[in-house]
Amino acid sequence: MAKPKSGNGYTLGIDLGGTKILAGVVDKDGNVKATGKKTTNAVAGPEAVIKRVIKASDDAMQKAGITLDQVEAIGIGCPGPVDSDKGIVRSAANLPGWVDIELAKELKKWRDVPVALSNDVRVACVGEHRMGAGKGCKNLITIFVGTGIGGGIIVNDQIYTGSRWSAGEIGHMIMMPDGPYPMGAGVRGGVETLASRTAIDRDLRAGIAAGIVKTNLPKLMEQKDGAITSSVLKAAVEAGDPLTIGVLQRAAYYLGLHAATLINAFDPEMLIYGGGVIEGLSEWLLKQIRPVAYANSVNKFEVTKIKIVEAKLGEQAGVIGAALLARGLL
Amino acid sequence: MAKPKSGNGYTLGIDLGGTKILAGVVDKDGNVKATGKKTTNAVAGPEAVIKRVIKASDDAMQKAGITLDQVEAIGIGCPGPVDSDKGIVRSAANLPGWVDIELAKELKKWRDVPVALSNDVRVACVGEHRMGAGKGCKNLITIFVGTGIGGGIIVNDQIYTGSRWSAGEIGHMIMMPDGPYPMGAGVRGGVETLASRTAIDRDLRAGIAAGIVKTNLPKLMEQKDGAITSSVLKAAVEAGDPLTIGVLQRAAYYLGLHAATLINAFDPEMLIYGGGVIEGLSEWLLKQIRPVAYANSVNKFEVTKIKIVEAKLGEQAGVIGAALLARGLL
Repeated sequence: MAKPKSGNGYTLGIDLGGTKILAGVVDKDGNVKATGKKTTNAVAGPEAVIKRVIKASDDAMQKAGITLDQVEAIGIGCPGPVDSDKGIVRSAANLPGWVDIELAKELKKWRDVPVALSNDVRVACVGEHRMGAGKGCKNLITIFVGTGIGGGIIVNDQIYTGSRWSAGEIGHMIMMPDGPYPMGAGVRGGVETLASRTAIDRDLRAGIAAGIVKTNLPKLMEQKDGAITSSVLKAAVEAGDPLTIGVLQRAAYYLGLHAATLINAFDPEMLIYGGGVIEGLSEWLLKQIRPVAYANSVNKFEVTKIKIVEAKLGEQAGVIGAALLARGLL
Repeated sequence: MAKPKSGNGYTLGIDLGGTKILAGVVDKDGNVKATGKKTTNAVAGPEAVIKRVIKASDDAMQKAGITLDQVEAIGIGCPGPVDSDKGIVRSAANLPGWVDIELAKELKKWRDVPVALSNDVRVACVGEHRMGAGKGCKNLITIFVGTGIGGGIIVNDQIYTGSRWSAGEIGHMIMMPDGPYPMGAGVRGGVETLASRTAIDRDLRAGIAAGIVKTNLPKLMEQKDGAITSSVLKAAVEAGDPLTIGVLQRAAYYLGLHAATLINAFDPEMLIYGGGVIEGLSEWLLKQIRPVAYANSVNKFEVTKIKIVEAKLGEQAGVIGAALLARGLL
């Protein structure tokens, strides 16, 4: 198969997650033509997962009406530390068996074009920077608040990867020296232990168990088999549930101090918030984060010009970011 | 006076501080030929201080055996927020009357060559990166622990200045949400309120007042009119003074957590520590910072390869950094 040289064709952008794979056909301007989705079925191991990555990509190409030889480059974002230079996934907490997997090489066996491999959260950051909320900014930070808290740092229009491809682990900035221990990977008192979905879940269940603040949460949870999902949180906030509102206010306060810390250290143009916790509550949460962030910024000069906004691309951020990183190789 | 074009001549590097002015003649390779020093006498106001800056520069040139027309560019580092694009000092906490002072313009009246104006701590960071402990590193962070805690961030061999020339205020990264209030500018619970000389001084005096830990510190302070200087701290540590050692261990612990936070967010190749508190105790403090920093890094892969070292250039860091920034304009 001859390699196309023009850079005017299509790029595949793939977001490989612990539960699902999303692949997209992306044009040269960063627009998604079509996507394909598969569950990851991570327990089946790396070889089976890579087959599902290819299947999701095939689906996306079929929907977009393009063939494999029109794909000029492939970009893929994966969890866990990756070596982007070598195209190797070093490890991935939620993908069992993924230790030093040569993912770029495997994908090249399928389609021999340049392959960009990067961390999933960094890839989503690139997507938001280039095509989402951060369009036009030179320096920004994304903060994704979900099960954990991850992020990405854009410096001079480029994703900043650090000395070990590890920059952007902003969920592990220590905010409380004697704070909670992490429940998975992480560090004691990192903002992830204070404001992630995992931390919010822990605090809500502790609140229910203590039984000293009025709450209708257990009733709302019944409809979700006892889980505290984003929609449960949203319904509780809308109903004015005192326990839920208190716990989320506390999380927002720590996210605000974390934002101030990022502003003081990096002075970005913009902070972009995404992830499950934010998507469910969006402006209600951001309204609480902003004043704490600005009040705790040491340089007050034009500080409110630093925008604190919601991500725009949702689940497509990773697909677009991966595709654009791959296009950068052409 | 004709402007030289070669870039092979000399650059003046000036470090304008609240108490002293240090000017240096620096060659094209970043070597200091000679320096001139003056007290700032800040109370006399901007006009008088600028005259003293010129006087210190004249002294340096005379010692170096060069004349004004051999100076190809001037670099100057100042406290407080500066606008490097416009060459304006916005304000400076320890220089009374310095509000929107067009310092670059004033210096050009004296010698009409390109003038680089930057923040004093950022300028020192450039010096350490190019000619000091950070030589050869692409990405690093400097942490200067003195009266306050300031720093600088080098990304891809360039000083990172942020969206408001305010990046690098790493002393105001919040480490303790309900922590101490700052005694000057700053934010509550910032690492500066936990580990700066001001914080150490506060904790030692509180310890003396409480009288529950054995200490010989008041006796050592007598020789310095009651001040806790770097040499007093050093003498107390060397004598095994329990109060002093305890307070400094606590400060080192917070500096270690702060270092981990920088590593997690930024993944630099190196952290360089300088400033009065470090210079006095150097390796004794760094030995306590390192294990806390590494233990609290979320990515343990090759983490001990991230060097945690002492600055090398001492008071000349600012002079060299300012001169090199100025040379970048040629």
